[in-house]
Amino acid sequence: ADVDAGKAKAALCAACHGPEGKASVPIYPNLAGQNAPYLVKQLKAFKEGKRQDPMMAPFMAALTEADMDNLAAYYASLK
Amino acid sequence: ADVDAGKAKAALCAACHGPEGKASVPIYPNLAGQNAPYLVKQLKAFKEGKRQDPMMAPFMAALTEADMDNLAAYYASLK
Repeated sequence: ADVDAGKAKAALCAACHGPEGKASVPIYPNLAGQNAPYLVKQLKAFKEGKRQDPMMAPFMAALTEADMDNLAAYYASLK
Repeated sequence: ADVDAGKAKAALCAACHGPEGKASVPIYPNLAGQNAPYLVKQLKAFKEGKRQDPMMAPFMAALTEADMDNLAAYYASLK
């Protein structure tokens, strides 16, 4: 996975998940240091609708599998 | 919320989420330092079946709201 590409794509996510993966609001999860395989599994679940969240759903259409892997690697790399 | 009570209850969770909230397997999420309101929201979603996971479901029946608040406070308190 490409952490730099993930970081660029994460601009979409920073509003809620924070610029450094620490959520701006505590009802949203911190992503910094989370496990990449878990993050990929959740992004896929949101994309397939297996996991539902009105905030996340609109972002999924634009995400490719590569994007998901890169985003997960990026957030896992943060402390 | 009662962090000590949460720690005691977390014995149930340690097998997958790790004794210190760092998951034993990367497909499971780290919980250490996660936001308590987010954790409570997810536990409730699992209990109500709004979020589904075959591993989590069996634990939910035994969890009261107080347990959920205590568990969330405990894991949020870990670094």
